[in-house]
Amino acid sequence: MDNKKSQNDLELSSRRAFFKKTAALSVTALAGTSLLASEDDHAIMHHPKWGQSWGDPVSKNVYGMPSRYEHNNTRRYTKLLASGNYRASIAVTPIHESEGIITPNGLFFSRSHGGVAHVDPKEYRLMINGLVEKPIVLTLEQLKRYPKVTRTHFIECPANGGQEWRGPQFNSLQFAKGFMSSAEWTGVYVKTILEDLGLKAEAKWMLAEGSDNSEMGRSIPIDKILDDAMIVWGQNGEALRPEQGYPVRLLLPGWEGNLCVKWLKRLDFAAEPWYAKEETSKYTALKPTGKAVQHFYANEVNSTVVSPSPEKPWGDLEDGTMIEIEGLAWSGMGTITGVDLSFDGGNTYVEAKLKGLVLPKSWTRWSYMYKFEKGKRLLLTSRAMDDAGFIQPTIDQETSVMGVESVYHRNAVETWEVTPDGKVNHVQVRTPGGVKNA
Amino acid sequence: MDNKKSQNDLELSSRRAFFKKTAALSVTALAGTSLLASEDDHAIMHHPKWGQSWGDPVSKNVYGMPSRYEHNNTRRYTKLLASGNYRASIAVTPIHESEGIITPNGLFFSRSHGGVAHVDPKEYRLMINGLVEKPIVLTLEQLKRYPKVTRTHFIECPANGGQEWRGPQFNSLQFAKGFMSSAEWTGVYVKTILEDLGLKAEAKWMLAEGSDNSEMGRSIPIDKILDDAMIVWGQNGEALRPEQGYPVRLLLPGWEGNLCVKWLKRLDFAAEPWYAKEETSKYTALKPTGKAVQHFYANEVNSTVVSPSPEKPWGDLEDGTMIEIEGLAWSGMGTITGVDLSFDGGNTYVEAKLKGLVLPKSWTRWSYMYKFEKGKRLLLTSRAMDDAGFIQPTIDQETSVMGVESVYHRNAVETWEVTPDGKVNHVQVRTPGGVKNA
Repeated sequence: MDNKKSQNDLELSSRRAFFKKTAALSVTALAGTSLLASEDDHAIMHHPKWGQSWGDPVSKNVYGMPSRYEHNNTRRYTKLLASGNYRASIAVTPIHESEGIITPNGLFFSRSHGGVAHVDPKEYRLMINGLVEKPIVLTLEQLKRYPKVTRTHFIECPANGGQEWRGPQFNSLQFAKGFMSSAEWTGVYVKTILEDLGLKAEAKWMLAEGSDNSEMGRSIPIDKILDDAMIVWGQNGEALRPEQGYPVRLLLPGWEGNLCVKWLKRLDFAAEPWYAKEETSKYTALKPTGKAVQHFYANEVNSTVVSPSPEKPWGDLEDGTMIEIEGLAWSGMGTITGVDLSFDGGNTYVEAKLKGLVLPKSWTRWSYMYKFEKGKRLLLTSRAMDDAGFIQPTIDQETSVMGVESVYHRNAVETWEVTPDGKVNHVQVRTPGGVKNA
Repeated sequence: MDNKKSQNDLELSSRRAFFKKTAALSVTALAGTSLLASEDDHAIMHHPKWGQSWGDPVSKNVYGMPSRYEHNNTRRYTKLLASGNYRASIAVTPIHESEGIITPNGLFFSRSHGGVAHVDPKEYRLMINGLVEKPIVLTLEQLKRYPKVTRTHFIECPANGGQEWRGPQFNSLQFAKGFMSSAEWTGVYVKTILEDLGLKAEAKWMLAEGSDNSEMGRSIPIDKILDDAMIVWGQNGEALRPEQGYPVRLLLPGWEGNLCVKWLKRLDFAAEPWYAKEETSKYTALKPTGKAVQHFYANEVNSTVVSPSPEKPWGDLEDGTMIEIEGLAWSGMGTITGVDLSFDGGNTYVEAKLKGLVLPKSWTRWSYMYKFEKGKRLLLTSRAMDDAGFIQPTIDQETSVMGVESVYHRNAVETWEVTPDGKVNHVQVRTPGGVKNA
């Protein structure tokens, strides 16, 4: 600023003097600021090193990337989730860094059963056959001529949190809850295509089949297809990413991510389900009786505290600081109607506030302003409700019905312990049994 | 599929026979499909080359990128917009490829006056001074402790379409209208910070100052600041990109992009505006009288046809195909209430349908289902309305008031000519004067 003359220079000099005089005032308790402006701060602000020379030209990034300083905001994977093979594996979303209800495409969680295929859109074909009046093979260009619809929905792997049935395994929000992400999807309702092709009355099930080398196949009840199932090619305003099934995947809003078949090559309509590999030995829930539950699809109402979280503790706050406790809630069965927050692991709850857009089968942000008490231990537990009438169970309630072998569809409340010295740990509160650490 | 045995194999064989028998049926007119399934299609679908081997492992992309086949979906720049220097320049968004109301961060338009700065978040400081009770210098961590809000808004350069005052210059939607993008923004309302710091009654203006080497400075009326101005650090669920002012920019929903100062380093409150460089010689509108209009900020109601467009013609459709004409509408003054579509360059209009989320100061998608008439020439013109009571003017109406020297705030209707052989051209319809080509 001192290098250039402008009509602001004189004003700035007087403001600088003013600032030095007033900088000793106590700063806001709301912001929890403890740092008063130092000479170093002035130097950084008045002569930032990044303002001393030209920046990058527009030619630098025709497709842009995150700041070089954001190298920690990435998808992560671990041997513990790799099924023995990093191709049939999962990379999870950094939920602790998430903002709003959109996950950027570069951070959207990625699960595949045979690795990420790279499909040539010119060679892409979608077959629609079985119990339809006019079976068809469509090119991508032809498919995209159907009238488009855009909807914001999360996709969640039904195994999200599935490592936590017996107690916390990961002291991490990213690994405990990062098998999900949210995006704005663009494509066509399957019912629109079926109105065109003609669905036969005997059709009760649809097979969605992928074209990657795992040949993912799942059977879906026709009611869901005729409700809100979509074939999508757009994600957050651009083409699907390869990890999401480029150029085309199925989207079943709110239902298991595994059903949203990627690299989609065929829809087949029939009177009976197919009992494919991934809906018999996998993606079924083993109950204590030894029987497995099949044909359950919707991800149940769920929530988590995002800030603070194990990866995002509050740091060194002053006593009495007003700080926002913030989180996510979601339900595959409908719209979030409320979220409660507990400071004692679920014994007592207060009401949190929903904020931003509240959309069906979509991430919903919630918030609670908390007056920070230094040195106090907290057991933060959130509990969401949806307009289908469901509320999150305790882990005791859920395991009493489902046992601990299910892997899938765990939606019991989770607890973060905030320690007196400001760390955040993933714990589980049992009755009886107390608190179990990760 | 033939390489693996499953219970579907037998069914598939019979379905294949069924398909061959029925493939000669006329295919859907709605989809406009003309390609019947050929032997090649069957080969592609049953044995896609990308399904023959393992795909990429999860370790391949901890931060993902678009498909290798999407190399044309990029920001673009041109010497014609470069102000003689590709650092003080603009890279425009491929609007013709856009879907929904989110622009992915990698494609968000990028305008800077001194190139893209790379700011170290650890060294970042924000000063808030002038007519506030408690002037302050905040670190990024401290700033982020304020309660967060998430909102979806477009940002538009007021020069969007500014090359088109005398007639079409670019036969391209990307270059004619791509000085804008839309995102989900997360940050804090400036009013929330001011409630904390205390704004003095004499404060009528706020200076927002950037820390890049252009030292962008703009004066903003306090009413806008206390209405919906935000300081944002999150864009589409992750940190701002460097081109968008990482780590922090100002967001004035609906107002000129230039006011949304990037790499924000200071907010100063005063009784008078500053008359900084970029609000005197630039970002003012020269009228035919020789006087320039200053202090106008909101981007007026506007719209465009996205599909078809010069970069996205319909291709070879069959006569009678039902095809969707789709577009965007937006207003910096409020919420879109309706869009009209003309096939004759604005003489007569029909009503289009708004679709998806309709949010204030946000991109809004609209749609009209059209029965394609082969060989017919169309002059597609869209006209949007907002709840502030405004409607897009014709170019004649707008130039009669503003002349043709303004550069900024052009929101007259635009027209695409669809030629009898299926090309799409950017034209301008004058009265009198007829149609003028790009």
